[in-house]
Amino acid sequence: MSGNTFGRLFILTSFGESHGKAIGGIIDGCPAGLKIDVQKIQQELDKRRPGQSEVTTPRDEEDKIQILSGIFEGQATGAPIAFIVYNKDPRPEDYNHLKKLFRPSHADFTAFKKYGIRDYRGGGRWSGRETVARVAGGAIARELLNHAGITVSAFTSQIGPVKMNIPVEAVDTTDVERSLVRCPDPDISDLMIQLINKLKAEGDTTGGVITCIVENVPAGLGEPVFDKLQADLAKAMLSIGSVKGFEYGSGFAGTTMKGSEHNDVFVKEGDKIRTKTNYSGGIQGGISNAEKIVFNVAFKPVSTLGKDQQTIDLTGEAVTFSGKGRHDVCIVPRAVPVVEAMACLVLADHFLRNEIARIDL
Amino acid sequence: MSGNTFGRLFILTSFGESHGKAIGGIIDGCPAGLKIDVQKIQQELDKRRPGQSEVTTPRDEEDKIQILSGIFEGQATGAPIAFIVYNKDPRPEDYNHLKKLFRPSHADFTAFKKYGIRDYRGGGRWSGRETVARVAGGAIARELLNHAGITVSAFTSQIGPVKMNIPVEAVDTTDVERSLVRCPDPDISDLMIQLINKLKAEGDTTGGVITCIVENVPAGLGEPVFDKLQADLAKAMLSIGSVKGFEYGSGFAGTTMKGSEHNDVFVKEGDKIRTKTNYSGGIQGGISNAEKIVFNVAFKPVSTLGKDQQTIDLTGEAVTFSGKGRHDVCIVPRAVPVVEAMACLVLADHFLRNEIARIDL
Amino acid sequence: MSGNTFGRLFILTSFGESHGKAIGGIIDGCPAGLKIDVQKIQQELDKRRPGQSEVTTPRDEEDKIQILSGIFEGQATGAPIAFIVYNKDPRPEDYNHLKKLFRPSHADFTAFKKYGIRDYRGGGRWSGRETVARVAGGAIARELLNHAGITVSAFTSQIGPVKMNIPVEAVDTTDVERSLVRCPDPDISDLMIQLINKLKAEGDTTGGVITCIVENVPAGLGEPVFDKLQADLAKAMLSIGSVKGFEYGSGFAGTTMKGSEHNDVFVKEGDKIRTKTNYSGGIQGGISNAEKIVFNVAFKPVSTLGKDQQTIDLTGEAVTFSGKGRHDVCIVPRAVPVVEAMACLVLADHFLRNEIARIDL
Amino acid sequence: MSGNTFGRLFILTSFGESHGKAIGGIIDGCPAGLKIDVQKIQQELDKRRPGQSEVTTPRDEEDKIQILSGIFEGQATGAPIAFIVYNKDPRPEDYNHLKKLFRPSHADFTAFKKYGIRDYRGGGRWSGRETVARVAGGAIARELLNHAGITVSAFTSQIGPVKMNIPVEAVDTTDVERSLVRCPDPDISDLMIQLINKLKAEGDTTGGVITCIVENVPAGLGEPVFDKLQADLAKAMLSIGSVKGFEYGSGFAGTTMKGSEHNDVFVKEGDKIRTKTNYSGGIQGGISNAEKIVFNVAFKPVSTLGKDQQTIDLTGEAVTFSGKGRHDVCIVPRAVPVVEAMACLVLADHFLRNEIARIDL
Repeated sequence: MSGNTFGRLFILTSFGESHGKAIGGIIDGCPAGLKIDVQKIQQELDKRRPGQSEVTTPRDEEDKIQILSGIFEGQATGAPIAFIVYNKDPRPEDYNHLKKLFRPSHADFTAFKKYGIRDYRGGGRWSGRETVARVAGGAIARELLNHAGITVSAFTSQIGPVKMNIPVEAVDTTDVERSLVRCPDPDISDLMIQLINKLKAEGDTTGGVITCIVENVPAGLGEPVFDKLQADLAKAMLSIGSVKGFEYGSGFAGTTMKGSEHNDVFVKEGDKIRTKTNYSGGIQGGISNAEKIVFNVAFKPVSTLGKDQQTIDLTGEAVTFSGKGRHDVCIVPRAVPVVEAMACLVLADHFLRNEIARIDL
Repeated sequence: MSGNTFGRLFILTSFGESHGKAIGGIIDGCPAGLKIDVQKIQQELDKRRPGQSEVTTPRDEEDKIQILSGIFEGQATGAPIAFIVYNKDPRPEDYNHLKKLFRPSHADFTAFKKYGIRDYRGGGRWSGRETVARVAGGAIARELLNHAGITVSAFTSQIGPVKMNIPVEAVDTTDVERSLVRCPDPDISDLMIQLINKLKAEGDTTGGVITCIVENVPAGLGEPVFDKLQADLAKAMLSIGSVKGFEYGSGFAGTTMKGSEHNDVFVKEGDKIRTKTNYSGGIQGGISNAEKIVFNVAFKPVSTLGKDQQTIDLTGEAVTFSGKGRHDVCIVPRAVPVVEAMACLVLADHFLRNEIARIDL
Repeated sequence: MSGNTFGRLFILTSFGESHGKAIGGIIDGCPAGLKIDVQKIQQELDKRRPGQSEVTTPRDEEDKIQILSGIFEGQATGAPIAFIVYNKDPRPEDYNHLKKLFRPSHADFTAFKKYGIRDYRGGGRWSGRETVARVAGGAIARELLNHAGITVSAFTSQIGPVKMNIPVEAVDTTDVERSLVRCPDPDISDLMIQLINKLKAEGDTTGGVITCIVENVPAGLGEPVFDKLQADLAKAMLSIGSVKGFEYGSGFAGTTMKGSEHNDVFVKEGDKIRTKTNYSGGIQGGISNAEKIVFNVAFKPVSTLGKDQQTIDLTGEAVTFSGKGRHDVCIVPRAVPVVEAMACLVLADHFLRNEIARIDL
Repeated sequence: MSGNTFGRLFILTSFGESHGKAIGGIIDGCPAGLKIDVQKIQQELDKRRPGQSEVTTPRDEEDKIQILSGIFEGQATGAPIAFIVYNKDPRPEDYNHLKKLFRPSHADFTAFKKYGIRDYRGGGRWSGRETVARVAGGAIARELLNHAGITVSAFTSQIGPVKMNIPVEAVDTTDVERSLVRCPDPDISDLMIQLINKLKAEGDTTGGVITCIVENVPAGLGEPVFDKLQADLAKAMLSIGSVKGFEYGSGFAGTTMKGSEHNDVFVKEGDKIRTKTNYSGGIQGGISNAEKIVFNVAFKPVSTLGKDQQTIDLTGEAVTFSGKGRHDVCIVPRAVPVVEAMACLVLADHFLRNEIARIDL
């Protein structure tokens, strides 16, 4: 598994298992002099934290971050920034019954086939708990974006069949945190919570969609032909567990449009060149055009259920098992800060890459 | 623009502009001893070639490949394999009228903002013509996959609103090449061709969806947590011009399912562990599980139209321009070999990466 | 500072400052199933530890390693292996007098010019203390080399003007640890210790040379044309603080030889193809040839002195300062495990890279 | 062989075999807007060209470069810059006698062991001819350095036992090209030429040393802890065929000095902070300090001789072979532009890396 490093210039390397000693990571490439407020990193982790509300898993982790290096007197020194979150409430013994079986739609089978050895304690490296490192790393990236004036906000736009239908340009993301499910439409938010409670009672789970908006991006971010901005965003999102799809701008719906409808006509607005519409989703030819970047991320239903399931064990025998681990009915609300974090990492990386794209900068 | 290299172990570096001297690339990391049939590379290029049929752009390029290094007596030597395709039918003068304006939904504006200089001749580096290098590189990757028994087949599943509705497991891809639009359902193929002809007459364009199936993949490909197989596939696809979305397995539709419906139950089939359903799309926890890998790629409508459009010029003045360049009404049919090529590159790379994942291999 | 990651497939990312909270790192890419004995990692750290003998700095650090992830029941799982060593005896207050001046031949000036901010506590990231992470990472790499039968042994061959003159092929490295200065020639070792004690009394320091021998390397390691085995070894060595030079095989002395003397003639020895001489130093054309790999690494005198020195402060004023920090008279004895560690990292990386060099492996 | 890419931000990927169709490469990451004069690239290639004088191999290659992409109207566009040099005077048939034997101290044996297949035509990928790509890539890098005011000059300081003894700070490199062997001391140059002629008559060869000086480097280049400037320079140099050693500043000689002699004392010179001496060789803590960067590169004697040699063939039988290929008696004079090119590549890369090291740039 050599895929634990993300980014070219603003680089996160991550480590940690669900029921091991700690989760953490190293940010390398953070420009020196950047002010970093550790409290802000903690706030992002708090949004991701299990046990934060009735709609999330009851596993109780305070997820308190420690910075080990790279920050001196509140500023990045240019040295790698290491951070660590110790696991406080691991219960590896909860997973002994999983030692010899493959849970459906988890990584148990594939990890075993790949590595021949499996840390079965709560999914090991495959637990969503690894996203602690993404969120912490993303919070550092966000400090760089703040410096550049760029903002990243995500929200839950769909859970199961319950879907917001406010057009994205009309969404106000300022109050997202008021909703337990992080949906900015209060009525839809209530329906989502009802759905989650109903599924919880049934021992079932569901999926959903997160929408992310990036604002105040300067034109120029993205490195064609392979490291287009949307390509790196797509990779970032699909690297999150449970994600099944990514689309930006007009996305899948745009496939049915005519070119004459879909083209974003340029207009001059004061000194600025803008587009009338934004089917391009803020990216053209792989490079940001200074309009809002908008994308959707699809999450599958949580695989861990509250009811019995059939599967097979290591010897191929059919067995029944019951889900004893603590889990979420829908991961989407807690995945909102993860989507934001990964978007921040991509944008910070491309912000730096763009700084050296031309000779006079 | 430092994003012209793709892959970690099986690596393509690409170059070339639409109306420059040549398009080409270098494959580094191809294992020595691999048999490479240059004729097969040419066949893939022929599928991508402009002017191949009535439904494609009339630009006439024979796209004849030359191998410059790295193959000796029909085998890879371990040295980098460089290849080149000279541009035979460039018409840079066709693009003089574009010198001073930004075409809507092209990269003209963003490239200019990023680099401060623009090779305006037919989109320069942003032309779909750069995919020649992807297709050639992908064809070499395919030789490695052939060696491992893995097959990759893509087809057009939707053009504009015309959509196949055969379930993916029932699709037979053997006759895809019989259809001018590369749709394996002959009736739907006819409707697609009619749609394209109608839009051509209108001077308009459309988008569509390509579905790709990878078969006989061994369990074990993919490198969590960031280089999950689907993450690298998503990046590969979103790096192709005009692509707006990617989904695998149950994709966006899976978001509305319950976990109890969506989980792929393991069963034993003879010696093999299989899953009853394949909502996972052949990948679990970022690693292939030996089922079919299935994914969809959304393409936006072609931005170059056959009719007049409004835009602005470099000085911000409103101007009308008419599309004089040769172009496709729908890029999807010619993008099928490009999607396959990118999938081959990802799989070859991950095939090699997996070879060293454990100690006894 | 984005240069804190080393290796392509067997990858060390390092963090930590001399007087910060901890030093540590992450190994990514270690093959699953590898047995890893944490005690062996500790033994390597003990060789590097300050305060280990009368000839080293009195700073007292027990340098006790903790593994945070990636090892389960004594084996690598394929997940990243994070490790940490907390700093137990930091004395940042010892360095307040350095806050405003640039010590000669240290990184104080260059770091300040580069980053505009400086963690002045004991050299911060530039302290030799960062090599804790190299040694720990190298010890994990060595477990992989052990698995492959490859051994790496370094020793002190010169301190100041005192130099061993046993030909390298006659050196027995088994008893290196008996010598306080890690010189396998007991008489020379004594002279070296005498020299160090004399310089200590004078408040002065010196440099030296470490020779490293790698045995039982299979033919085939090295990736021309840029990642030749000697190129990566040279980079590894020159990345160690205080290193001023690298040579392998005949090295600088070989420049004066004639080709007819220098060529290593091939001979058959039983089933094996060997060379009569080894001016090539075990590497030909950038690839190991199965002979011993032999190289020398030159270290400059330690810059921190025990006597007053002239320098300038941040405002450019001339100042005198006295070396109060704890330091070594000669870093070479403690650098022996560091040279070995870096060699192990390079060889483990190239061992994995070579596994996929040809099709039938 | 996946090691054909060099650099992190200013990146050269190279291809080509001695007696294949062409040698070439791709520069990715060259900032847009940089003026590039193709004639200057040609001039550098002319310095490396075989057949340029009586002291070099008689192989006659005009080494005429063609730019295939990435430069438009004399400026870099940000797109990858591909270049190609066709082989005009290959004589693969000259090498048929080598098909079945391993030449001493060449890569024949190791390449065969690694890849199982060998392009035996003139050393294939291992021929010094691959340095055409280095020189062309380095010439593009030099355009970026010119823009930044940095100059790179190398010269022959030793051939066999004939050695310059002007102190490096007194050497005037402006007339290096007047000397057939590129030695700036005319008397030593004559002795070197005499030595080469004598060895040629004997059918023998020799090695030597190249010294390189980099001037006007700003303080700040280099990325500790692994990508220190000297580490990347060392790798660059050791990646050149025939190179056996690298040292910078005081180098191996510095190992015998005392710290009190070796420390470079800071002084103020007008507005600038300078060092009185330059044992540091322009680099402290892995970062340039704005003094001259000075390093030496050791080359072994050429392995191809003009007289008969003993070796073994593929079956292990002893055979005698006579050197029929065209070759140099001493590669050092023609390696001068290669050393410069590699230094330019390293410096251009680090120049860009340093641009994003701190927040206010």
